[in-house]
Amino acid sequence: MKFLILLLAVLFVVQVAPAQSDEEMLKRIYDKALEKGESYEMLEFLSKEIGHRLSGSPQAAAAVEWTRQVMIAYGFDTVFLQPVMVPHWVRGEVETGKIVKSKIGTKDVNICALGNSIGTGSGGIRARVVEVKNFEELEALGSRNIADKIVFFNRPMDPTFIDTFSAYGGAVNQRGQGASRAAQLGAIGVVVRSMTLANDDVPHTGAMNYAPDVPKIPAVAISTKDADLLSSLLADDNNLEFFFETHSEMLPEVLSYNVIGEITGNKKPDEYLITGGHLDSWDVGDGSHDDGAGCIQSIEALRILKELGIKLNHSIRAVMFMNEENGLRGGRKYAELALKNNEKHIAAMESDRGGFIPRGFTMTTTDTNYETISSWMSLFEPYQANIFLRGGGGADIRPLGAQNTTLIGLYPDSQRYFDLHHSANDTFDKINKRELELGAAAIASMIYLIDTHGLK
Amino acid sequence: MKFLILLLAVLFVVQVAPAQSDEEMLKRIYDKALEKGESYEMLEFLSKEIGHRLSGSPQAAAAVEWTRQVMIAYGFDTVFLQPVMVPHWVRGEVETGKIVKSKIGTKDVNICALGNSIGTGSGGIRARVVEVKNFEELEALGSRNIADKIVFFNRPMDPTFIDTFSAYGGAVNQRGQGASRAAQLGAIGVVVRSMTLANDDVPHTGAMNYAPDVPKIPAVAISTKDADLLSSLLADDNNLEFFFETHSEMLPEVLSYNVIGEITGNKKPDEYLITGGHLDSWDVGDGSHDDGAGCIQSIEALRILKELGIKLNHSIRAVMFMNEENGLRGGRKYAELALKNNEKHIAAMESDRGGFIPRGFTMTTTDTNYETISSWMSLFEPYQANIFLRGGGGADIRPLGAQNTTLIGLYPDSQRYFDLHHSANDTFDKINKRELELGAAAIASMIYLIDTHGLK
Repeated sequence: MKFLILLLAVLFVVQVAPAQSDEEMLKRIYDKALEKGESYEMLEFLSKEIGHRLSGSPQAAAAVEWTRQVMIAYGFDTVFLQPVMVPHWVRGEVETGKIVKSKIGTKDVNICALGNSIGTGSGGIRARVVEVKNFEELEALGSRNIADKIVFFNRPMDPTFIDTFSAYGGAVNQRGQGASRAAQLGAIGVVVRSMTLANDDVPHTGAMNYAPDVPKIPAVAISTKDADLLSSLLADDNNLEFFFETHSEMLPEVLSYNVIGEITGNKKPDEYLITGGHLDSWDVGDGSHDDGAGCIQSIEALRILKELGIKLNHSIRAVMFMNEENGLRGGRKYAELALKNNEKHIAAMESDRGGFIPRGFTMTTTDTNYETISSWMSLFEPYQANIFLRGGGGADIRPLGAQNTTLIGLYPDSQRYFDLHHSANDTFDKINKRELELGAAAIASMIYLIDTHGLK
Repeated sequence: MKFLILLLAVLFVVQVAPAQSDEEMLKRIYDKALEKGESYEMLEFLSKEIGHRLSGSPQAAAAVEWTRQVMIAYGFDTVFLQPVMVPHWVRGEVETGKIVKSKIGTKDVNICALGNSIGTGSGGIRARVVEVKNFEELEALGSRNIADKIVFFNRPMDPTFIDTFSAYGGAVNQRGQGASRAAQLGAIGVVVRSMTLANDDVPHTGAMNYAPDVPKIPAVAISTKDADLLSSLLADDNNLEFFFETHSEMLPEVLSYNVIGEITGNKKPDEYLITGGHLDSWDVGDGSHDDGAGCIQSIEALRILKELGIKLNHSIRAVMFMNEENGLRGGRKYAELALKNNEKHIAAMESDRGGFIPRGFTMTTTDTNYETISSWMSLFEPYQANIFLRGGGGADIRPLGAQNTTLIGLYPDSQRYFDLHHSANDTFDKINKRELELGAAAIASMIYLIDTHGLK
């Protein structure tokens, strides 16, 4: 009789504590993120107390140590560093730009050296300006018109794209390759319209790269307002000149780190699901959206899964990649070590489109896995995060693609991103607490679903 | 032979200029809004040059005249005013709040009289404080505990709702009815936690109403941070007192206006499709999101349809409703005149949830019309504005519901709205140009589709 009562009691317990449905688990994850979220305070510390953190800078080192300590404090099972050599580019203290000899006389212009660019050195450079919209126009002008000039790349981002990343993709080659394309024709410097849809006075930096065997010439960005002004002044008088002085330079490489926090899996500890962002940022603003948000959301996603006491099958990692902005060394190193250490990576997520309201996910995977993941779309409908797009994922996780890892990108709304991207506008006051938290919840939910249901 | 060539030429012309598909028309509307939009500059003027504009204020009169002139300048076929008497509540110059006799001594607190509230008059009121979360707690305490006290309504908005309007709906009765509920039990004043999910120092106003035959007592809002502080101090010492002084008062009603711009229909000029917002705002901030955005988007929607040279079947109106915030007189007057003048209103839209990224539409209509409208959902998918929800529409258009008008609300993302709603935070710098423009495009697109395909 006693045994029967005990049995009934056991059965009763089992009955009242059934396995929770995916719907219920996602609701628990979202509630935790919105009611007891810690991402906002974490990001406030990273942004305000550490600040911007370009690869090789003391702040980047501080960010490595701080995120390591945060993940240890949260009690993740393992927290470790992956050493990686990174470029060490510095902006230098003085940046000066001027339109000179124009019909309005001399006008100071805010400039911002492009990342990886050489500087002009003291005295700066001054020359006539040739405005082009694209490389075809540049080539058509030829060295006869370009030699000894400053080339002004002024193709705006197309505002009619709804996803502003498409507009960025259509304009960014001016910034990346403009200097070497112009230098091949004898130009002595390059001025690039900022990659933004905003009409303001703030220049936006970002990586440029020198082609091999082409003379290196200095490159700077100017604001969209100044680009429009310069263009209209040139239309009246193409003899005007532009002056700029920068002292940026590439120093010897330095040792830095990816920072990794892991919660070890219960059933398949040697299979990994990772989520990350990049810890480095440009050396303007404080890198709150690009990509403090993605790092903190990744830590927060693991914290939430741990706090909810969810027994995970796979090992889960939050990865702070180093050096996305001007080298991608961290992302490459991570994939290299995953291969070397035989760590099977089922899926890798990245949040690197700002901490804005999440609209869904992008994904690079097989048709079969896309079908599996798409079957979860309705689970994200209550959270209005059910746009599932094929392609993409994130720059840092892309190298894992060669290991057949499913790549997933958090897909936040893109309308505000390029207003602040790579500029002094990217500061913590532009972060909305709920939007940031909803991103962390979306990431944690996607990890939970992949962990529970697996991929092929 | 000449005739044949002519005929072929005509056929060719007809062939290359077919009627444009809905997809093409929406693309043209969105392109116009994003490339050559004028909403941002319009709203900048309304917000910065006119500023906040509570019913009865000089600024409200200025806003009436300015929007009238703007719509005349855009060449709308008819622009006219609808006279309407509105309440004229004024805040008074001095607002002072203090926690007194607490364990931290005296602390100044930012307060903000609730709209329509009487003031305390000179000298203010000072009393012990009773904190409650809801009316049930209040009733349970009864007049024995409430008489001669200040009642502190401190139920937070629930952060776990994804649509923050649901969280607002779950908390706002404290603000609307709290004073009369407390006065019935003998309270002498009311302090209400601000209706916001943000954790900051800014109090949020908003309408309250006195129940008939209940003594009128003054009511103020305090910030969420101060509400949390007051609550924790009360937990230690329920003898502490709160002091506040306000000089708000209701003056005699004044004459104001709805402002209406119309583009007359080509086929059914006596059938109307309208889109609107409310022109009045609270007397804090500058009313950019609530609801300058909705007014300007409505004007912009008509401007876009006109500029694109679209021949509209029905008469289309942009309506700036007066007095949504503390009386709804404009919305009621509009419906009353529509009935009196036999103006058949097929559909009425309102944008009154801020100028944020549009996610879709809400609608109150018949099953048949919901089916028709839902069949257009995929047209909004490229613009990521394809959440179509039943119910709602907007406070100003609700009175038209009795005339079987389909009511539609623009449904922007709600995450940031209550951070600024009814507070000093609602200023133009919180407006994102593209988000505002996308809202105008969504409205113009919906009008176009209803005009083209009709409703039952």
